[in-house]
Amino acid sequence: MFRYQILVEYDGKKFVGWQFQKKGKSIQKTIQFELSKLFKNKITIYGAGRTDSGVHAVEQSAHFDSEIKILDIKKKIKSLNFFLNPKNISILDIKKKNGNFHARYSAKERIYKYIILNRASPPSIDKNKVWHIRKKLNIKVMKKGAKKLVGTHDFSTFRASNCYSKSPIRNIKKATIKKSKDKIIFNFRSNSFLRNQVRSMVGCLKLLGEAKWSLEDFKSAFKAKNRSRCAPPAVSDGLYLEKVIY
Amino acid sequence: MFRYQILVEYDGKKFVGWQFQKKGKSIQKTIQFELSKLFKNKITIYGAGRTDSGVHAVEQSAHFDSEIKILDIKKKIKSLNFFLNPKNISILDIKKKNGNFHARYSAKERIYKYIILNRASPPSIDKNKVWHIRKKLNIKVMKKGAKKLVGTHDFSTFRASNCYSKSPIRNIKKATIKKSKDKIIFNFRSNSFLRNQVRSMVGCLKLLGEAKWSLEDFKSAFKAKNRSRCAPPAVSDGLYLEKVIY
Repeated sequence: MFRYQILVEYDGKKFVGWQFQKKGKSIQKTIQFELSKLFKNKITIYGAGRTDSGVHAVEQSAHFDSEIKILDIKKKIKSLNFFLNPKNISILDIKKKNGNFHARYSAKERIYKYIILNRASPPSIDKNKVWHIRKKLNIKVMKKGAKKLVGTHDFSTFRASNCYSKSPIRNIKKATIKKSKDKIIFNFRSNSFLRNQVRSMVGCLKLLGEAKWSLEDFKSAFKAKNRSRCAPPAVSDGLYLEKVIY
Repeated sequence: MFRYQILVEYDGKKFVGWQFQKKGKSIQKTIQFELSKLFKNKITIYGAGRTDSGVHAVEQSAHFDSEIKILDIKKKIKSLNFFLNPKNISILDIKKKNGNFHARYSAKERIYKYIILNRASPPSIDKNKVWHIRKKLNIKVMKKGAKKLVGTHDFSTFRASNCYSKSPIRNIKKATIKKSKDKIIFNFRSNSFLRNQVRSMVGCLKLLGEAKWSLEDFKSAFKAKNRSRCAPPAVSDGLYLEKVIY
């Protein structure tokens, strides 16, 4: 058996998400189908991050096992992209790994990016790639809120009701916000995230930026460890799995 | 009569270009249709830059005359975007101008951006928004080439055969190239450009970056003032009308 890591970019808009589901097109299923065709053998891939429907990946990481050794990796990538690129998936790289490597369990850190387009007019060039917020957001106060998220905390408030993790405790290593023209770009780093965590955190930070919440409201919702205190989560369009670090 | 300037963003992919044409959907025609509906009167708009099919605009500028004064501009923009955004056009702003203002003839400078995605794998997130070049480009030598373009020159080599300008002389004020991750971003400023000029210049700079042309080849093609010496123009996907300055 040969184990391979596969790095993948995708536009998540037309997918039900990364994970295989009975109904609808998932990214995992679409890649598995093409890999299985190429290897003339059923291939299963395991992703590092199970991105939801509509969520994009700049560099998702996954692994798979194959009985056949890949002789010409560059050629294989080119063949895969020939079939996958029309479906908005790009294979960025395939790397030989030893059998201990597991895309999900070996991951040390995951980096997510979130983009808000903060202007009056809706996006045309970045359609489906940003969250469009009309009202001018106060970035200074949002930065203060983001700082509160850094460290080891109980993130129950920011956790989807259908999140199956044993513990709501996570360690956020980085939570930054920067402005680039009319875009507000969030960056979150953690060894792992709860389901819906990033979108829930951005949803709350947005209320803060709109002055619908004070910093006290934000802290109080966070400390409540209660999902019902969470703001409506940010839309999937603006979320990107940026990178997985091992 | 009231004269208005209109600032527009668009994803050019599904259009035949800015300019009205007998066949196909143009951006001009699409905006005119919605403006005429809103004003209950035939409105004609005049654009500052006639972008070709597939070319995008971060901020195109146009003007139109109306017999009716717009009382609530913000509301008008919102109504327009309601109809135009599904067609990948966003009205960014509408400004009252005096009768001397002409979007095209009053323009002092046009800024164009061109983006090359320089990596092995084709784009998924930036599909139709970049020119995908597999071979690693030498940016250092491309920058040297770009420098040669700055100033007042005869740009006949970089001029489309169907360009109707009286003179092939143009004054390029800025031609810069920078790298941002796997993207190469070109920036060109001039009071005006010849038809196809930016894409022709980028096409030649790309040959330079691929080492298919030497700097001498580039200079010689430029000095030849001969269209037949031009490289194949860069694809429309990577070109953006960035801003029009008055």
